[in-house]
Amino acid sequence: MTLHAVILAGGSGTRFWPLSREYAPKQLLSVFGEDSLLTSTIRRARQVISAEGSIHIVVGEELYDELRNHILAQDEEVSTSIDYIIEPAARNTAPALALAAATVAAGDTEGTVIMLPADHICEDGARWQATIAAAVDGAANGSLVTIGLHPTRPDTGYGYIYACDEVVGTPAAAAAGRLASAQAAIPIQCFVEKPDLATAERYLAEGGYYWNSGIVVARADAILHELEAVAAAHPDGAAAGNLRMVETACSLAANPTNAAARTAYAQLLKVSFDNAALELSPHVSMVPTDLDWSDVGSLLSLEALAVPNAQGTRVIGQGIDVDSTDTLNYSTQRLVATLGLDNVVVVDTEDATLVAARDRVQEIRAVVDALAQRGAPELKQNKTSLRPWGSWTLLTRGIGFQVKEIMVTPGSSLSLQSHQQRSEHWIVVAGEARVEIGDALQTLHAGQSAFIPLGVRHRLGNVGEEPLRIVEVATGSYLGEDDIERYDDVYGR
Amino acid sequence: MTLHAVILAGGSGTRFWPLSREYAPKQLLSVFGEDSLLTSTIRRARQVISAEGSIHIVVGEELYDELRNHILAQDEEVSTSIDYIIEPAARNTAPALALAAATVAAGDTEGTVIMLPADHICEDGARWQATIAAAVDGAANGSLVTIGLHPTRPDTGYGYIYACDEVVGTPAAAAAGRLASAQAAIPIQCFVEKPDLATAERYLAEGGYYWNSGIVVARADAILHELEAVAAAHPDGAAAGNLRMVETACSLAANPTNAAARTAYAQLLKVSFDNAALELSPHVSMVPTDLDWSDVGSLLSLEALAVPNAQGTRVIGQGIDVDSTDTLNYSTQRLVATLGLDNVVVVDTEDATLVAARDRVQEIRAVVDALAQRGAPELKQNKTSLRPWGSWTLLTRGIGFQVKEIMVTPGSSLSLQSHQQRSEHWIVVAGEARVEIGDALQTLHAGQSAFIPLGVRHRLGNVGEEPLRIVEVATGSYLGEDDIERYDDVYGR
Repeated sequence: MTLHAVILAGGSGTRFWPLSREYAPKQLLSVFGEDSLLTSTIRRARQVISAEGSIHIVVGEELYDELRNHILAQDEEVSTSIDYIIEPAARNTAPALALAAATVAAGDTEGTVIMLPADHICEDGARWQATIAAAVDGAANGSLVTIGLHPTRPDTGYGYIYACDEVVGTPAAAAAGRLASAQAAIPIQCFVEKPDLATAERYLAEGGYYWNSGIVVARADAILHELEAVAAAHPDGAAAGNLRMVETACSLAANPTNAAARTAYAQLLKVSFDNAALELSPHVSMVPTDLDWSDVGSLLSLEALAVPNAQGTRVIGQGIDVDSTDTLNYSTQRLVATLGLDNVVVVDTEDATLVAARDRVQEIRAVVDALAQRGAPELKQNKTSLRPWGSWTLLTRGIGFQVKEIMVTPGSSLSLQSHQQRSEHWIVVAGEARVEIGDALQTLHAGQSAFIPLGVRHRLGNVGEEPLRIVEVATGSYLGEDDIERYDDVYGR
Repeated sequence: MTLHAVILAGGSGTRFWPLSREYAPKQLLSVFGEDSLLTSTIRRARQVISAEGSIHIVVGEELYDELRNHILAQDEEVSTSIDYIIEPAARNTAPALALAAATVAAGDTEGTVIMLPADHICEDGARWQATIAAAVDGAANGSLVTIGLHPTRPDTGYGYIYACDEVVGTPAAAAAGRLASAQAAIPIQCFVEKPDLATAERYLAEGGYYWNSGIVVARADAILHELEAVAAAHPDGAAAGNLRMVETACSLAANPTNAAARTAYAQLLKVSFDNAALELSPHVSMVPTDLDWSDVGSLLSLEALAVPNAQGTRVIGQGIDVDSTDTLNYSTQRLVATLGLDNVVVVDTEDATLVAARDRVQEIRAVVDALAQRGAPELKQNKTSLRPWGSWTLLTRGIGFQVKEIMVTPGSSLSLQSHQQRSEHWIVVAGEARVEIGDALQTLHAGQSAFIPLGVRHRLGNVGEEPLRIVEVATGSYLGEDDIERYDDVYGR
């Protein structure tokens, strides 16, 4: 048996605006450490998959380039041997997992998969490995094995799994923390939706209720089989489209460019794997665990990054606070001063700031919708984007020009490329650049510059020991990122 | 009799941070219209001074360059024939007005002056001119004539002048608005400090109380004479230093470079003209008026710029609000989203944002002090600075380099200059540049560039019809604004 990983990375993460953007969703953010949530998830997956196991990342077409650039910019532990499964359209998690399972099964008929959301925080190490090992054991008989987190507070933001049996389910057992972490999968009774506070408090007191982590371990063939079996047993409701879903997933896995299958996939019902399978299948079990875990569900997750002062206020970054209570001042790139606030959340980025009542943060969707309606560019992209060779930051943009600061890591180089509609000036401000323009090759240092006329092939590389920094001034009638023709690229883009 | 104007422009305006900065104090801000408060004040002065009258601006040495650049960037009505009186040190308004009066008296022994704060908003036009004409008449006998504003609300942020006589001073008279605007100066009883709310409400109900505008009209010699007379009558207290003050002011007016007088000035007691003269002199009168006026005393003044929505919330600029009450979202340069707030003030600038409880805005000083303690650059300067030839905006700064966007107005040119420690790249991104480097002269268009080696004389001018925009990338070990040697400057700097 081989364990493969499937990472669901299609989420748009609008609940994390302004930190997250359409092209920089939550899973690509590095706010909880040096690693992004996606990068951490990949490292966590590597700790549990088999030596010959593969890692598949399911992502939408729009995000694929950005996500791949992000991964290529990481170290080898993260960036090597990643397979991408590109969804023709976002149809929620059931179609995505069906496609992933079909893809894994096509390559390894006996394969087992661990399915991981890309945008959660989770403890790794020995306890993580033991938990997943127990889940893999539990999946051997064809079960769908979920991971249930022992709740530590009456959280209303999570769905719960009720796994009451003769051992758990009494207040005494809950108080003793029994079965908080077990080394084996146990039967479950049912899934329950996000509760209100009173219900969540009752769950915590009664015991037997676990947070639904969204992590599932199962044999690839069992996933497809259970989707079909559930559809047969429950022909109406959420599982109604399962047969068509499995059929489409298998066609698409066999040939990802199959136009008919792509069209069919885009027409599948949008349904979650919980609704389409887990809640209806009799072959679901759960490994209970007390791993440190969070689904990073709202901007309030940022509060975990700092200890509050005596007034309950946290300043994260370079902000300053005078006499606010129970307030979050998150400003890592600019200066934000907060004064005398009560229960306010401020989240600042280079080009956009959110100021919200603390108990309204969950309503960020209303802000995002309003911004979408006015076509706000601040929904699309951050000012800084990672690339396999380093990063770039937009400094300013005007009619007919834009200015970027470009950083190239030592030894890296951009693709050999040309532009149809813009010329570029490069001014080296730090480091040692190797610049290829047409047939000419030169080495430039700080204070030196180069001009790239419209249409001429060019390439920039860092041949020094330090990060290379250049300021690029582009002028032309059209300055979009898509005006690029690539002739050679060490990253195979 | 000739009427001259003296504009007191020395204020630091920290109460307006983050809009105001040390080198961009409140009087230089253009948030209440296209004109800055200083520019409006100069236009207002021009409407009342005599044809042969002069305009003197009193300013500290640190702010002089920035303020002069600001004025030189304005149209001719504002920028021509401005005299600068540079204070050797900031000693509050009494020494500043003594110096200004001595300067005017030295040139025109019969001269009358109108003294205006540079950072207030005030109605101009016919009613303004009539008010000042009445004050000039009142000043002919040697009186110090103040301008009192008929109060429209029980404001606790203003000092009051009590001008009770047989005509005013009864609730009935106040209700009828009698003497709200008079065409003649009337006697006053006393000055009163900023009251608490109950007192302010009583003032409003009783009548006879007027807001102290800070505007004074008087003969230049009368100002000096009253300062001396008050000192003789009240040798202790606020007027104790008046004799030395007048003596020093006269020495300095006679020779602004007199080192002894400069030192003496810097050692004068810090005292306001109200304390040193108006509150103690028997020769003070007041012209009552109901001009639209504001001292723009706090960031809440920004509320005047927009009509609130049904929930009392104002969005000024490009911000967005969802369901906040009684909140101000002022964000003219970046995107600020406010969500579900109550009585919060957000004031956003390119590089710094203030978020404050609405009833705590007056405590901004605590924020400014905390920022000063950490040496925050966001207290010093805005990212954009006006220059006589246009403006520049700092785009980014790193170790060994900085990037600016420079705009030059049609027909303008920078000084012929050189730098000891930095070289510069200029890339034209819009317009038509005349570039002089050493002995070479060339015309550059969008997409073309020039390199200015360290130490070489250079000059940039706009010879086109449109604003010229260039991106300047400077590299070198030191990048301060003071590394500049000027050889020729059309603005005489």
